[in-house]
Amino acid sequence: MGIRVAVAGASGYAGGELLRLLAGHPEFDLVTATAHRQAGQRLDTVHPQLVGLDLTLAETVPEVLVEADLVFLALPHGESAAIAAQLPATARIVDLGADHRLADGDAWARYYGGPHAGTWTYGLPELPGQAERIAAAIRVANTGCYAATITLALAPLLAAGAAEPADVVVVAASGTSGAGRAAKAHLLASEVMGDLSPYKVGAHQHVPEIKQATGATGLSFTPVLAPMPRGILATVTALPTGPADPRAVLAQAYADSPFVHLLPEGRWPHTAATLGSNSCHLQATIDADSGRLIVVAALDNLGKGAAGQAVQNANLMFGLPETTGLSSLGVTP
Amino acid sequence: MGIRVAVAGASGYAGGELLRLLAGHPEFDLVTATAHRQAGQRLDTVHPQLVGLDLTLAETVPEVLVEADLVFLALPHGESAAIAAQLPATARIVDLGADHRLADGDAWARYYGGPHAGTWTYGLPELPGQAERIAAAIRVANTGCYAATITLALAPLLAAGAAEPADVVVVAASGTSGAGRAAKAHLLASEVMGDLSPYKVGAHQHVPEIKQATGATGLSFTPVLAPMPRGILATVTALPTGPADPRAVLAQAYADSPFVHLLPEGRWPHTAATLGSNSCHLQATIDADSGRLIVVAALDNLGKGAAGQAVQNANLMFGLPETTGLSSLGVTP
Amino acid sequence: MGIRVAVAGASGYAGGELLRLLAGHPEFDLVTATAHRQAGQRLDTVHPQLVGLDLTLAETVPEVLVEADLVFLALPHGESAAIAAQLPATARIVDLGADHRLADGDAWARYYGGPHAGTWTYGLPELPGQAERIAAAIRVANTGCYAATITLALAPLLAAGAAEPADVVVVAASGTSGAGRAAKAHLLASEVMGDLSPYKVGAHQHVPEIKQATGATGLSFTPVLAPMPRGILATVTALPTGPADPRAVLAQAYADSPFVHLLPEGRWPHTAATLGSNSCHLQATIDADSGRLIVVAALDNLGKGAAGQAVQNANLMFGLPETTGLSSLGVTP
Amino acid sequence: MGIRVAVAGASGYAGGELLRLLAGHPEFDLVTATAHRQAGQRLDTVHPQLVGLDLTLAETVPEVLVEADLVFLALPHGESAAIAAQLPATARIVDLGADHRLADGDAWARYYGGPHAGTWTYGLPELPGQAERIAAAIRVANTGCYAATITLALAPLLAAGAAEPADVVVVAASGTSGAGRAAKAHLLASEVMGDLSPYKVGAHQHVPEIKQATGATGLSFTPVLAPMPRGILATVTALPTGPADPRAVLAQAYADSPFVHLLPEGRWPHTAATLGSNSCHLQATIDADSGRLIVVAALDNLGKGAAGQAVQNANLMFGLPETTGLSSLGVTP
Repeated sequence: MGIRVAVAGASGYAGGELLRLLAGHPEFDLVTATAHRQAGQRLDTVHPQLVGLDLTLAETVPEVLVEADLVFLALPHGESAAIAAQLPATARIVDLGADHRLADGDAWARYYGGPHAGTWTYGLPELPGQAERIAAAIRVANTGCYAATITLALAPLLAAGAAEPADVVVVAASGTSGAGRAAKAHLLASEVMGDLSPYKVGAHQHVPEIKQATGATGLSFTPVLAPMPRGILATVTALPTGPADPRAVLAQAYADSPFVHLLPEGRWPHTAATLGSNSCHLQATIDADSGRLIVVAALDNLGKGAAGQAVQNANLMFGLPETTGLSSLGVTP
Repeated sequence: MGIRVAVAGASGYAGGELLRLLAGHPEFDLVTATAHRQAGQRLDTVHPQLVGLDLTLAETVPEVLVEADLVFLALPHGESAAIAAQLPATARIVDLGADHRLADGDAWARYYGGPHAGTWTYGLPELPGQAERIAAAIRVANTGCYAATITLALAPLLAAGAAEPADVVVVAASGTSGAGRAAKAHLLASEVMGDLSPYKVGAHQHVPEIKQATGATGLSFTPVLAPMPRGILATVTALPTGPADPRAVLAQAYADSPFVHLLPEGRWPHTAATLGSNSCHLQATIDADSGRLIVVAALDNLGKGAAGQAVQNANLMFGLPETTGLSSLGVTP
Repeated sequence: MGIRVAVAGASGYAGGELLRLLAGHPEFDLVTATAHRQAGQRLDTVHPQLVGLDLTLAETVPEVLVEADLVFLALPHGESAAIAAQLPATARIVDLGADHRLADGDAWARYYGGPHAGTWTYGLPELPGQAERIAAAIRVANTGCYAATITLALAPLLAAGAAEPADVVVVAASGTSGAGRAAKAHLLASEVMGDLSPYKVGAHQHVPEIKQATGATGLSFTPVLAPMPRGILATVTALPTGPADPRAVLAQAYADSPFVHLLPEGRWPHTAATLGSNSCHLQATIDADSGRLIVVAALDNLGKGAAGQAVQNANLMFGLPETTGLSSLGVTP
Repeated sequence: MGIRVAVAGASGYAGGELLRLLAGHPEFDLVTATAHRQAGQRLDTVHPQLVGLDLTLAETVPEVLVEADLVFLALPHGESAAIAAQLPATARIVDLGADHRLADGDAWARYYGGPHAGTWTYGLPELPGQAERIAAAIRVANTGCYAATITLALAPLLAAGAAEPADVVVVAASGTSGAGRAAKAHLLASEVMGDLSPYKVGAHQHVPEIKQATGATGLSFTPVLAPMPRGILATVTALPTGPADPRAVLAQAYADSPFVHLLPEGRWPHTAATLGSNSCHLQATIDADSGRLIVVAALDNLGKGAAGQAVQNANLMFGLPETTGLSSLGVTP
């Protein structure tokens, strides 16, 4: 018997990807998966791609989760805290939602509303010292998918003092799975195919998390919905503080990282190359005209941006190699 | 008999869209369309969407163009000048290529190589006083599709002194038709669908044109290839110089424009709404965190970005209402 | 003052396309457009592509429609009859819904349920003698989009006795706009992009209409949802009755048709070439192995399959050239 | 040291997917991968999704392949035989090309031209007795991707005498990766996105293979190119011979198959659910109107249709469980 795992909120896209990864994980044994409206349904009715996983979705209540050694919460924002409070203190939890990411309760209140649920260990193992903190943690807050992408691109440059934190400009485009599985008219295929649309321009709820995780003090972040199911491409620009080579800074930061890949000079990240993987691809240059640093990062929002990252964190929490059950290789084309 | 029109380079995407527009134009009579490798083929073999236009593509040589009152050049970059030199001085010409856009011959040499062909009247009628210049011109250089998008978003703000010209950051994504119709491996559907990929990061050949047309003095421009056939979405940010309302500046600049639409507050441009039209949609705000101005512009790269703009310019050159044969309405979904 | 036109049900995809076509129609003057849940909203909020059309959606009630000389009903199936009954007998009506298509009330009851609303003149002018009937009619039932595609491919072959009516096999794929604009989970972009999915296999509600319009007596019809916004591609096969050349039959049937195009031998229809147009493209051959007739038809489900066809019918009803305000040319790529 | 594996023709899409699968295979050790024009390049330049696989593509010559215990040939059609003839008789070979599939040399000559290379053991382990033949074979011919899809749908029904072999009608749509990676204009993203296009209608080179593998004696097969990177959806119809339940026949045929999944009644296969997996999803019904059997099959043309099937065959050839290194679970959305 391996480590007993439960997934709460398994009917969404991140939940489905998590179940796919867990099915191939040699140490984690899925014992239950829960849902809300779709409780009682066979898993492969809700996720036809998971054919052969013989499982019926349970109701998302603490009783079905308490036997697990490891609980993944893939619930709508605002619903994790209540469930987490009813789980044993010894159960390790990875929260894929936003509830426990922010250190600043005021920022939570401003963008999400309602009481702040508290701050858990931030689940981005590539940040300096963070893998050790995650390994020691019982509760870990997975990052947002945009925050993961932007932080991997920017944090080393700010930490190294190579870029100005006060005037960071980010435009990031995401595939539609990042917007969830609820039936909304603006997410219909007829609306999205052939279309690029910006949203929440000038005031996105992920700004506080991105600033917290990157160290940026002034951030213009414009998210764009792109006509593809998965993938985030973030273009991050900042003013350099001096003549430092951004590639050298990134190369050093990720020298030992199994999942963050600085591409050879001249090759730029693109999202399809990361599809289905836990990889983040990076490239950087100095803009010839403006002199700005430009860093581009690509990852799979359901992979390194959500489910893959969650498994990576869980691996660390259980003392496993962080790559266990994860792949760097994309499913392309 | 109306105005006799020739299209040189009709086999590409801009050429095809131009023929579609000309077929519905009440004053322009298409008399010839030319191509290079596909000369001698029926038009609807090369452009199956133009079924019913009974035409065979001629060779692109001056002899077949000299009878026309109006010549559109939709040729590869670098090939317009030689053809134009052999056309009658009285023939009005709109060049959809890059050859005659730049005022600065050095910039041409740096990004395109070869001798600079000279500078023609810049074909963006929405710039102050430009419609009059175009109306008086015999030779007009259509803008690049990125340049059109970004200039419509940015030029009024810089002209009004509302934004700093020295630190403009643009990320713009384009559909694949902007990359042309030549068979290249990285433009294959298998590569592009499900993918976002940046290209020419840090050194794009359109930077000089964008700076010239907008008045920006420092520009970081990152283009991205998006998985859709048409459309450009440009996110333009700049530091404000004071408390001016960017919407008010844009509203005044385009109050009388039939094709540039500042959307009602709260609605953001998206590319699909402009598909097949000559419209550009705009919206602007002040970023809550950084205080930067953010302007987003969307247009159809083959419409207002190329063929529609060319017809609009030609209308002006012949004293016709600039909307003749053009539509503001998108073909959506 | 031209012909006063009203569109009931303008918020859907067919309604939007109809408004786009009407805006460019020289004889029809749109006086009102109605909706249900979106009544009271500005038109360009509901259809951002119709920027510049200054109109507010009215409530779909008979009172706002009675002044019109021509009423288009683009309502959900089952809602046309009640409205039509309250309009003046002199008002010409084109119903884009299914309510009045079927001659057989039992077939209606079996597939749609509820009382049968009655049978109107069938709106496919390309059927023999049908243009004259439409011209004389006050009430016309637009065809379904699948039925239009399949009927244009098959009806001439059955009418000419060139194919067996008892064993027709059709597989037809449609873009997502054919499934409507209501927010449904299986129509989300995340579900549809990269996916082909058959639906209602073995029992589709359009079978009776297709049989009625084509003359087929035995029909296997499998519809497939395709990852594109618009377009239907129907592959129609039937056993030949003798050595007749299917191309010759189709060429004769559509010799005078402005919108149905039999392609030159060797070129096959594809949907993108019809996008935004009122064209149907056809090609036929004899299968080398099985000896079956294969006819492939492509059209735009919102064009010739819905809004374009409706305008074509209305043109006939008012004695206008049937091409008025319509184009054969596709918006491609 | 495990089983030494070579991949000849690694630069194409099937080759890339094969390398991805081999990287996760516990028994097969990739020792070399070859290419033609891209020989000498780093693997991750050619396949950016395979970041981290440290390999340089060798030239496709026998010398670099002779050390391998297992050779996968993913070469253009017609190139396998010459290479295979120069490999040791003891080396196990799986040919992903068409060269060795057909038993009938005349059919080869008619559709492919050139001399017939001979017939190898047919690589579809789900056919009765075929897994045993593959296990005993030194040379195995992978099936074509269309043939795999159609055969899995149809062969059991014909073998059971439940369907007439003389009048089988198939329409099958494929994603673009099935058309290969060579830069061709009709495969450009601008052409394919938003488009469905049939091709080789009435005379496709895969007809002989499909007839041979299914037992059909008369076959109408119409292939369609669909706007998605991967996936095949085949709609197969045939006349029933009697009242047999097609679901029961398929259920029995695949009762022990790890990869062929007959879906629960009412759920139809769709391609996205098989993406990245080695699964084939099936469903069947009797058409209400025509009485025809309809079977729909979906699979990933690069998975069960090519690279996954090749690994499955190789597993059998080496006495490994056929599921080794393969997954039934799709990467969706």
